[in-house]
Amino acid sequence: MTDLITVAIDGMGGDNAPDMIVGGIDLACAHADDVRYLVFGDEAQLEPLLDKYPRAKAACEIRHTTDIVTMGDKPTVALRTGKNSSMRLAIDAVKNGEASAIVSAGNTGALMAMATIVLRMIPGISRPAIVTSFPTQNGDCVMLDLGANIECDAENLVQFAVMGEVFARNELDIEQPSIGILNVGVEGLKGNDSVKKAAAILQESDLPIKFYGFVEGDDIGKGTVDVIVTDGFTGNIALKTAEGTAQLITFFLKKFLTESLISKIGALMARPALERFRAHFDPRRYNGAMLVGLNGVCVKSHGGTDALGFAHAIEAGVKLIRRDFIEIIKEDLGHLISPSSDASENTDNADNSEPQSATA
Amino acid sequence: MTDLITVAIDGMGGDNAPDMIVGGIDLACAHADDVRYLVFGDEAQLEPLLDKYPRAKAACEIRHTTDIVTMGDKPTVALRTGKNSSMRLAIDAVKNGEASAIVSAGNTGALMAMATIVLRMIPGISRPAIVTSFPTQNGDCVMLDLGANIECDAENLVQFAVMGEVFARNELDIEQPSIGILNVGVEGLKGNDSVKKAAAILQESDLPIKFYGFVEGDDIGKGTVDVIVTDGFTGNIALKTAEGTAQLITFFLKKFLTESLISKIGALMARPALERFRAHFDPRRYNGAMLVGLNGVCVKSHGGTDALGFAHAIEAGVKLIRRDFIEIIKEDLGHLISPSSDASENTDNADNSEPQSATA
Repeated sequence: MTDLITVAIDGMGGDNAPDMIVGGIDLACAHADDVRYLVFGDEAQLEPLLDKYPRAKAACEIRHTTDIVTMGDKPTVALRTGKNSSMRLAIDAVKNGEASAIVSAGNTGALMAMATIVLRMIPGISRPAIVTSFPTQNGDCVMLDLGANIECDAENLVQFAVMGEVFARNELDIEQPSIGILNVGVEGLKGNDSVKKAAAILQESDLPIKFYGFVEGDDIGKGTVDVIVTDGFTGNIALKTAEGTAQLITFFLKKFLTESLISKIGALMARPALERFRAHFDPRRYNGAMLVGLNGVCVKSHGGTDALGFAHAIEAGVKLIRRDFIEIIKEDLGHLISPSSDASENTDNADNSEPQSATA
Repeated sequence: MTDLITVAIDGMGGDNAPDMIVGGIDLACAHADDVRYLVFGDEAQLEPLLDKYPRAKAACEIRHTTDIVTMGDKPTVALRTGKNSSMRLAIDAVKNGEASAIVSAGNTGALMAMATIVLRMIPGISRPAIVTSFPTQNGDCVMLDLGANIECDAENLVQFAVMGEVFARNELDIEQPSIGILNVGVEGLKGNDSVKKAAAILQESDLPIKFYGFVEGDDIGKGTVDVIVTDGFTGNIALKTAEGTAQLITFFLKKFLTESLISKIGALMARPALERFRAHFDPRRYNGAMLVGLNGVCVKSHGGTDALGFAHAIEAGVKLIRRDFIEIIKEDLGHLISPSSDASENTDNADNSEPQSATA
């Protein structure tokens, strides 16, 4: 085969690594036989695991290293001391052209810092953002930033809007995604300076994007827009609040349904429906957030996920490679952000930007 | 009876006013016969409604005015031109000692601006905050600020922590409520300057409060702490995200349960359980947020609520009056915020503060 896709895997990142990593690769192999994996990590741990998964073994090449970035490492420390870590070497493989994407379930802050330094920013974008998709009443939507940048100015938000637009178009197959800025009200006078300025820029610009205006927290679940733009502080809290609320509601649903014999029988009869309901909100199905804005596909898996979740993260990365996402985003950004627009002012600072991670 | 409680009602505030106002008073009368109501609004509209509810009529005195604050009025405009509005006159009744609490379902920004000017701040507090309680996996918790202040510094957050502590102690009957600051991670290095400084102040202070540290978005639903402290921008978005997620999940639960005949029958058998589940998350049960920090009990009802929701808002206010909440909070603040503590620096600016409302 001439069109093999290569994915670099941080074999040691995540709470259940490397077990769930190898298990995840094996599951991903079931859905795609044109993908091979460079797995960076401790051979002594990886080899026996791969022996248990012959399908994965056939698609993997181990690149041995015993250095790892731990969940507690500060990004600056990881940058300085982690040059031979499984995470860093996997990122290097993308930089060197050996792989087309890197997938890691490790320390988010370290991943972002290393990926930014190694892969660098796409011209026109000053900071990477974390983006992912999730379910709404009205199909899936995407939200960014989910924690890469604690404080964002209007220009950052405008760049997120443009990147989110391209991401939603390619990832969700929406022809012209609508974009909303998350705020505390829908009227123009509401909110902080950053959201007000960003809305004004998007409203007045002649970018070929569909800007809806402001949306509120409850619009996320309603699916009012396809792309929700926010700073990393608010986005991280909104995403986790939604996750916590989902857990809260299913906790009480279970509690009430098991309180009487008759409701238990009812729940048993409705079990296939309740299973489909549960599967619809299974966070593993939405695992795999992208660090968008970088010169390469970099996918962050949830650290606590299992093999199924990690397989979804791999598949999210592979989908972006098949779509040639980085080339499309560069081309679209070229159209969307003209050199004279406000949004490209910070381009030269790209390498000096110090992203703060929310979820390291 | 010697201990009649008087509540001032903005008879014209809210989407379904005055109908749901009078209906709500009637429902509240069923639970308390020692409360009377001064209802400010248009006699021509209120009188025929009260004729339909004799129980409410017996407890109400109409104070006629035709001026109203609309949902679209800017707070500054409402302050200048709304001196004879039903909202303003109801607040004035608390200031004059005619009533012990004001309840309004009207324009939040206008209510906050007017109440701040008329009732003034409690010494030691520089800005009012919106606080309410809601369900978690671990009993009810309270969160503030839910939208009164778009940007908050560390001192504001420390004051919110202290007010939330007193509120939770009295409203939720928790002997020593635990307090967490909402952030994007639990480690000390995470977050913006305000949350880091506020955490340091609370950690180092000798305030007799139980400071847990940082909590994340999913800790809200888990009920990790009793009091969640955050700025009004994040708090408003987190609260509405939770509401939207609850709607999203019940939407899909209903969808999946009605997809097949057998699951419909199952759902029918489990109906009493599903009804209890629904009632547990009924937002009307949690209607009635308090503007805390003011020299008087000021309760904001959701603008779109119905009579049952408005009755809950009235009852929230009455509960606070029975507890002598304003006196307790003043006394406790005296103990909690000593004149030399960091948190009281802004006291002199109280009247100059310009609260920004998120939900006007």
